[in-house]
Amino acid sequence: MKLEQIETPAALIDIARMQKNIARMQAHMNTLGVAFRPHVKTTKCIDVVRAQIAAGARGITVSTLKEAEAFFAAGVDDILYAVSIAPSKLPRALALRRQGCDLKLVVDNPIAASAIAAFGEQHGATFEVWIEVDTDGHRSGITPEQDTLLEVGRILHENGVKVGGVMTHAGSSYELNTQEALVALAEQERAGCVRAAQRLREAGIACPAVSVGSTPTALAAAQLDGVTEVRAGVYVLFDLVMHNVGVCALDDIALSVLATVIGHQADKGWAILDAGWMAMSRDRGTSKQAHDFGYGQPCLLNGTLLPGYVVSGANQEHGILSSTDADTQVTDIEQRFPIGMKLRILPNHACATGAQFPEYHAVMPDGNSVEWRRFQGW
Amino acid sequence: MKLEQIETPAALIDIARMQKNIARMQAHMNTLGVAFRPHVKTTKCIDVVRAQIAAGARGITVSTLKEAEAFFAAGVDDILYAVSIAPSKLPRALALRRQGCDLKLVVDNPIAASAIAAFGEQHGATFEVWIEVDTDGHRSGITPEQDTLLEVGRILHENGVKVGGVMTHAGSSYELNTQEALVALAEQERAGCVRAAQRLREAGIACPAVSVGSTPTALAAAQLDGVTEVRAGVYVLFDLVMHNVGVCALDDIALSVLATVIGHQADKGWAILDAGWMAMSRDRGTSKQAHDFGYGQPCLLNGTLLPGYVVSGANQEHGILSSTDADTQVTDIEQRFPIGMKLRILPNHACATGAQFPEYHAVMPDGNSVEWRRFQGW
Repeated sequence: MKLEQIETPAALIDIARMQKNIARMQAHMNTLGVAFRPHVKTTKCIDVVRAQIAAGARGITVSTLKEAEAFFAAGVDDILYAVSIAPSKLPRALALRRQGCDLKLVVDNPIAASAIAAFGEQHGATFEVWIEVDTDGHRSGITPEQDTLLEVGRILHENGVKVGGVMTHAGSSYELNTQEALVALAEQERAGCVRAAQRLREAGIACPAVSVGSTPTALAAAQLDGVTEVRAGVYVLFDLVMHNVGVCALDDIALSVLATVIGHQADKGWAILDAGWMAMSRDRGTSKQAHDFGYGQPCLLNGTLLPGYVVSGANQEHGILSSTDADTQVTDIEQRFPIGMKLRILPNHACATGAQFPEYHAVMPDGNSVEWRRFQGW
Repeated sequence: MKLEQIETPAALIDIARMQKNIARMQAHMNTLGVAFRPHVKTTKCIDVVRAQIAAGARGITVSTLKEAEAFFAAGVDDILYAVSIAPSKLPRALALRRQGCDLKLVVDNPIAASAIAAFGEQHGATFEVWIEVDTDGHRSGITPEQDTLLEVGRILHENGVKVGGVMTHAGSSYELNTQEALVALAEQERAGCVRAAQRLREAGIACPAVSVGSTPTALAAAQLDGVTEVRAGVYVLFDLVMHNVGVCALDDIALSVLATVIGHQADKGWAILDAGWMAMSRDRGTSKQAHDFGYGQPCLLNGTLLPGYVVSGANQEHGILSSTDADTQVTDIEQRFPIGMKLRILPNHACATGAQFPEYHAVMPDGNSVEWRRFQGW
């Protein structure tokens, strides 16, 4: 299908940009001498993941068991479920392992560790667990020097559960915007995770994998001594938040929402689009960054940026396109953006915007597109 | 399935609360002597819509053609597509009408009106169009006194397109929080829409329907003289935004997200949930209201409110539950919210949270639940 024929709103992936993003990350990982395990929560799309694996990725990271099930069914068997598991989800995890999936679980507390050990014993099953390490205080995990780290390690190790490694995610990197700060956080993330592995090993617990990553720290890391693998998700498409963090150019952003102009409020300088928050998502991740892109950055159908305009407001199925300069009276909004005109809107957050759609339209350089399904739910 | 057996995260509908909300709105409409046409964009779920129709609703409002197609396939044939149509979507609209769907379109500009007239003539088809009226300046539509109103009316009327009515949506009601202001806006919405109909009729254009509504104005309206029908969506489930507007109690909110405690950061007073923004949505609609509920209000599994706690942060699959009192050191977070504990989180915005899920679990008073599918996309 030609780009011009796609009904709006639609989520477009620019395949050339995506491939460039994949190649860039994989080349950096190769240079650093570490394996790369992409986080597939960004796209939940087998077509994208096949491109990541073809470029050299080893295994995947998932944020839900549904992702694990869907990607295992599609032929991926090395899967890290990177959220501390709720004990009630262990039967689904066991079912995957019994089908031959090399599913690795994550915990950051003694109670979940004990639950895995007890469940494994009860069902005669062996699990592999990675311990989540907190290296930046932004969310979950055990800090490298906490006693709980060794406690969790021992609960697993002494009860027949393989401690496969340690993993951390320096998600606070999203709040930074200088290369210097990113390099420093990448080093903090590396050092903390390596330290946790060292403590486990000193306690007699093998800890083969040392897994770190977020898109900004992965791209900023100068050296990863002691790390075995890196994880990152949003790099594959990038978005306006990542642009503000400083790790991509606007024309690296591979995801956009195709929209049609459906009306105007000329006296206010507004063009009304058929892409509201149901299409863009409610993510306003750039609202606290140096450049607030509203609900998205408009571009022409051919991808040319339209500086000076922004999607400034959104209802469920209506977006409001207006000038970024509140003092400028836009008198020609109806002429510049006529009814029926199609635009591409770059999103704040690729993970959130993609989740609003059942499918991507993957656009090739010649303007033809194919449909790539994505899935929803848990 | 019993409530305790549902995997988390999950979207729960409390059927008793939903039925109470439906009955309340329908009774108010009956008292005011107007028809009620619920907006089904909130749930996109045929089970909910059947309950609304059973209570007395006449026809439905949709925000996408996919909703129109899905509900027509499920047996609903009186459908108002309440977004000014992009001309490129006319073939889908025509296909629905040719299948027998009484689909009404909406426009608010001469170009779309001309496109409908031309498309209808080209295909030997008759469309019915309602003209969108702007009564509060918050989004789209033509103000009642604008010349454009009659221009659009004439384009339709003189080219064989039936002008079925006028419609307006006073969406700025979401920004209010007193009964007095809501009553005044409801009257403004009514008066503006009735005036638009009067001008069309004086110009010789029949205008049978006069359709107004938003959940807050619908519930606040004291009299609706000249109005033939009211539309509202979110009233069926309600949410925290509507609670802050003042049109529902917290225990009227029929939608909640079932979540499990999966970890803690005890020194910060955090319990970590397996419901992040992918489950709650990124909607932070209460952030600008008098009471900011963060990403949601926690309740026990039985629905008992937990005042003093809030979902204060969210990553994709992690929610952070913490005390609302920043000065209070929560020292017993691990004891109060142990690993594995299930909670129900009331959402900011029912339309946005529901859209994150492929299905609702509709919970009956005895604790048993059934699955109600909803759909996604355009």
